[in-house]
Amino acid sequence: MIVETNVEVRYQETDQMGVVYHANYLVWFEIGRTTFMKEVGFPYYRMEEEGIVAPVLDIQVQYKKPLSYGQVANVKTWVKEYNGVKITYEYEITNENGELAVTGQSTHVCVKKGSFRPIALRKKFPALHDAYLNAVKDES
Amino acid sequence: MIVETNVEVRYQETDQMGVVYHANYLVWFEIGRTTFMKEVGFPYYRMEEEGIVAPVLDIQVQYKKPLSYGQVANVKTWVKEYNGVKITYEYEITNENGELAVTGQSTHVCVKKGSFRPIALRKKFPALHDAYLNAVKDES
Amino acid sequence: MIVETNVEVRYQETDQMGVVYHANYLVWFEIGRTTFMKEVGFPYYRMEEEGIVAPVLDIQVQYKKPLSYGQVANVKTWVKEYNGVKITYEYEITNENGELAVTGQSTHVCVKKGSFRPIALRKKFPALHDAYLNAVKDES
Amino acid sequence: MIVETNVEVRYQETDQMGVVYHANYLVWFEIGRTTFMKEVGFPYYRMEEEGIVAPVLDIQVQYKKPLSYGQVANVKTWVKEYNGVKITYEYEITNENGELAVTGQSTHVCVKKGSFRPIALRKKFPALHDAYLNAVKDES
Repeated sequence: MIVETNVEVRYQETDQMGVVYHANYLVWFEIGRTTFMKEVGFPYYRMEEEGIVAPVLDIQVQYKKPLSYGQVANVKTWVKEYNGVKITYEYEITNENGELAVTGQSTHVCVKKGSFRPIALRKKFPALHDAYLNAVKDES
Repeated sequence: MIVETNVEVRYQETDQMGVVYHANYLVWFEIGRTTFMKEVGFPYYRMEEEGIVAPVLDIQVQYKKPLSYGQVANVKTWVKEYNGVKITYEYEITNENGELAVTGQSTHVCVKKGSFRPIALRKKFPALHDAYLNAVKDES
Repeated sequence: MIVETNVEVRYQETDQMGVVYHANYLVWFEIGRTTFMKEVGFPYYRMEEEGIVAPVLDIQVQYKKPLSYGQVANVKTWVKEYNGVKITYEYEITNENGELAVTGQSTHVCVKKGSFRPIALRKKFPALHDAYLNAVKDES
Repeated sequence: MIVETNVEVRYQETDQMGVVYHANYLVWFEIGRTTFMKEVGFPYYRMEEEGIVAPVLDIQVQYKKPLSYGQVANVKTWVKEYNGVKITYEYEITNENGELAVTGQSTHVCVKKGSFRPIALRKKFPALHDAYLNAVKDES
């Protein structure tokens, strides 16, 4: 299961190099995850409403080709790994000509808000647990 | 009472116009308020630890001269008005040559986190209430 | 002529108060202007390609009701004043229930990139000049 | 050669999780590089004044412990690898108790602004080239 979102470059996202500032692609990855969770029927804000947050443990980004204001990017997001506690997403951002701009991956863990203690998704949100398992199966 | 803070322009704060993106000066105003409250002996994070937040009601900014990466700005912050519930700060940002870059003012109200119901500072934080009263007197 | 854009709140746009950080609404105003110029047939990036930029001279924002992650905002943008050199936009941001969240206005001047010298839009971009004149007429 | 910078957490840098938003540490890495280049006597803005920019090719971040508003972080920056064209920086961010918060590394290439064609630092900026060589030697 690969989820796609379009992101229109904001002027604010550029820097004086004339292209999108490199840290902003992490925000687009976050938009990819937001779309992903909405599409599996479990929007992330609902997770937080139940007192669970999913902070980033690790992130990796490869920059291939800069994007500029006036362009619309396509962000592809999918689940690469999931073990019941940790989840690893992968991302691919392309420009309007289909050229690869940025790739990346991020690993997250579901924890209680405040204490940051890990929780087992299978018990807390079984439907989301199953959705992740299915999403990984699709990719392998 | 006028509080001063220096802010070194971050590369991330620039945009493709080659200067600081206009919304970032609001972040510098926030740094000015943080410094102000620290200097009156009541850091803002302590206010939030007690369940009170101070959202912005109104903000006005005048842009005189752009600032660039490589420059250090000076942010002056003071209290213009305070009526026990609302507080109005004023700001003046200058570049290293003392030239005026940006001026502004913002009005805030102290409310309970979550409910956003206004609280009377005099009862909840009398020391801060007095500090604001004194700060205004200084300016008039 | 009133131009509308929808903006989905990004997680990155929130702060620890649990709502959208106040400076980010200025970015949404910018999205409103980008959409406006696209709709009058003169995308802003094309203006910059010709060496003209439109920095902000003055901005005013009134905060009525906070927006949160999980919500989609509607941004209305129109031209309030235009005198051939300066242009004033007005904005109205509402939440999904149509409640007013934020209002604002910003004044811009068209200048040469680098020198920041004002230019007369009528000579440089007559079509845009006419579009602004018509846009103002619509509002009065 | 390890360069240190202190960064005070900005309210704007937090998100509704109550801690610093993960993408903002990349901005702190950038502050680390800015300080590094200033200390080797070749501020980055001077490189750009000569028409050279140093975009990021690859970045990796490991998140160990969240930082919050009210805290001051210490950012350590050093050069891990340098081959005349590409340079790899490493970073270590600690909180006020000396606990490890974030580690990371980023690889950059020096290119001409606009064309993004790689340049040989040794020819263009020999003093910076030597500074990088010495910085790497220190670390090995």
